[in-house]
Amino acid sequence: MADAASHANHIVVPATPATVHWGYFSRSLKPVAAVASGDFVTIETLTHHACDDHARMIAGDPGAESVFHWTKDAKNVDRRGAGPLDASIHGRGAGEGFGVHICTGPVYVHGAEPGDVLEVRILDVQPRACRNPAFAGRAFGSNAAAWWGFHYNDLITEPKPREVVTIYELDDNGGHWARAVYNYRWVPQTDPFGVVHRTIDYPGVPVDHALVEENHGILKGVRIPVRPHFGVIAVAPREAEFVDSVPPGYFGGNVDNWRIGKGAVMYYPVAVPGALFSVGDPHASQGDGELCGTAIECSLSGTFQLLLHKRDRLAGTMLADLDYPLLETGDEWVVHGFSFANYLAEFGDQAQREIFAKSSLDRAMRDAFRKMRHLLMTAKRLTEDEAISLMSVAVDFGVTQVADGNWGIHAILKKALFSGEAG
Amino acid sequence: MADAASHANHIVVPATPATVHWGYFSRSLKPVAAVASGDFVTIETLTHHACDDHARMIAGDPGAESVFHWTKDAKNVDRRGAGPLDASIHGRGAGEGFGVHICTGPVYVHGAEPGDVLEVRILDVQPRACRNPAFAGRAFGSNAAAWWGFHYNDLITEPKPREVVTIYELDDNGGHWARAVYNYRWVPQTDPFGVVHRTIDYPGVPVDHALVEENHGILKGVRIPVRPHFGVIAVAPREAEFVDSVPPGYFGGNVDNWRIGKGAVMYYPVAVPGALFSVGDPHASQGDGELCGTAIECSLSGTFQLLLHKRDRLAGTMLADLDYPLLETGDEWVVHGFSFANYLAEFGDQAQREIFAKSSLDRAMRDAFRKMRHLLMTAKRLTEDEAISLMSVAVDFGVTQVADGNWGIHAILKKALFSGEAG
Repeated sequence: MADAASHANHIVVPATPATVHWGYFSRSLKPVAAVASGDFVTIETLTHHACDDHARMIAGDPGAESVFHWTKDAKNVDRRGAGPLDASIHGRGAGEGFGVHICTGPVYVHGAEPGDVLEVRILDVQPRACRNPAFAGRAFGSNAAAWWGFHYNDLITEPKPREVVTIYELDDNGGHWARAVYNYRWVPQTDPFGVVHRTIDYPGVPVDHALVEENHGILKGVRIPVRPHFGVIAVAPREAEFVDSVPPGYFGGNVDNWRIGKGAVMYYPVAVPGALFSVGDPHASQGDGELCGTAIECSLSGTFQLLLHKRDRLAGTMLADLDYPLLETGDEWVVHGFSFANYLAEFGDQAQREIFAKSSLDRAMRDAFRKMRHLLMTAKRLTEDEAISLMSVAVDFGVTQVADGNWGIHAILKKALFSGEAG
Repeated sequence: MADAASHANHIVVPATPATVHWGYFSRSLKPVAAVASGDFVTIETLTHHACDDHARMIAGDPGAESVFHWTKDAKNVDRRGAGPLDASIHGRGAGEGFGVHICTGPVYVHGAEPGDVLEVRILDVQPRACRNPAFAGRAFGSNAAAWWGFHYNDLITEPKPREVVTIYELDDNGGHWARAVYNYRWVPQTDPFGVVHRTIDYPGVPVDHALVEENHGILKGVRIPVRPHFGVIAVAPREAEFVDSVPPGYFGGNVDNWRIGKGAVMYYPVAVPGALFSVGDPHASQGDGELCGTAIECSLSGTFQLLLHKRDRLAGTMLADLDYPLLETGDEWVVHGFSFANYLAEFGDQAQREIFAKSSLDRAMRDAFRKMRHLLMTAKRLTEDEAISLMSVAVDFGVTQVADGNWGIHAILKKALFSGEAG
């Protein structure tokens, strides 16, 4: 890889209506750029929750204004989701909001073929500064406690149920902490095409702040550690033409692990020629679990180096037989288990509906166990007995998310375990 | 509490046949000691897995030898578990092994009444050094990948199923790392009373090393971070006369969170007069999840300070309405959720059987969510909307254990979130 890197190019992909795909992955998307292994790419990503506070997260920003532009006469990005363009199921809008994340890409990787592994090094992550003179230079994000959250049917105070949006501001445009600015209860919003959205059921619906009551002075004295990361990094799945961006899978996608930030390295099994790499769902911060359905959703730009590992060079490495998104940090290897490891194949035609009905942490735990065992037995050459003992005494299993249909459990393997004889 | 502490006593409770209760909690046990709020107590605990390697974990140690003593003529601690003394269900032995942990205590706390909260400060934790001249001064533990482990019916190599014991040694008698010494596959063992144990179905069965094959040279170059802690710290539950020590509950018990070590503080809701505090199930290390059913089970001694919080002083504090074991570390508050928050009450007469049939991480996640919400709304005075947003963006949910019937999810709240306006 050293040779490739030494002649590497660095391209920039801004977020524009022409460079984003909203709410879905597709093996058939036309690439917005092409790179060679070793190249660098800086990618702008926009949060699909920016409309929750247009003044702080869109106004004055030409790229964001263009992507979110939606009047009765023009909707710059029409398809939002993997559903029908004519919205014939629920009538929510083109794509039906079956998938919500604004993804920038895809980037075509020369030479990538099914069976290869794409390594994605996250070299830098920066919040996107507000361009509205009233808030210029500051950075904001939105947290929506929404109908798909784990809490939604389990509220104890009235009115029940309800959806609540909380707007956060980052210190120093990307410092260590974020603080709440205000929150409001979602009320029915009528989109520019006249569709009423009684819940947060379609992404990018402009919120009319004349209709909502802003509660300022909330979460007083509370600060949130900022962990900027990308909820979605994906290669295109092979199984279907349009794939809902919400449930994560073997292709990555909406993994929603806050550890996928600056300094992290991700590995994805390539499923289609050129890999078709996309990034979206930027987060300023998230807890393990993503309990209420979203993080602090905050537009970010990332700089990545993409490296291709050909399938005939994987045996005996950490990447052998890789069939899920694998995370490497400076100190850890992190395996991602899901309720259904490859739901698109397991459920066939009904996959994109069934997966939401069968969320299960118990199954995700089983998947994480099997994947970690495989890693230890393959790359670390342990026997099954060694691997299982090690997993029980030194591997930490955590809840990645209970927000994305295909719920996740991750397993953390510390690199220090393998530092040999040094005490 | 300052006054109480300044006149505090410090007592020592060694592990002897007279000071341990094996495999169960009981509101009717005669206390082995009594203390006042503010007093200190050093408690020896023995791992119930010490018989996996008698030479390294029992031999030459008078206390351990006495507790584990079992010949055809004498079994110093007869009852092991909450089952029938005549072993009329399975014939495994007195108590049937329905509960396995050797617990030292109970310690009676003067003035403790139901509705109060017992604070347990863990001031020190020390491994119990081997007294066998062949290994003198070193410390060992055992990890059993057993039939109750999450992996057991999901093995990929033969023979299936199987149970495997791995013996670990701690560096420097309690240093930072442990290493595997050898492992062996469990084979049927005949106990001194003539009962054959085809699986690890009764605690303290002497393992005849002439019957097992020791595999040395395993887990080469692998080291385990040592995290000494107590799997079991409990107050006596109110609901039943004999309570199986395996499923954790509101009374604490077998919580199996490795964070319950030196420097940690635990809070338990007192359920019976005197609280009846017991400690056992000592671990040298465990991963979040305790996947194969056990940790590195290793005898330890702990020094604790016990402080009583009367029920009429709890309102508005972190301890208000406390109905579960709450952990405080220097940096964090950790809430413990279970599949069933109070399984003894929820299932009634059948509780101690049903709980093993209904393990569920999904339910434990719900319980952890509700408990954390309560803590944030009560002690931190947040609205439900504030609490839910905060949980999604800054609270980390992890898998405590999938080994103990009543599976656990914990939720970690960082104290730094509440450090006020300082950036």
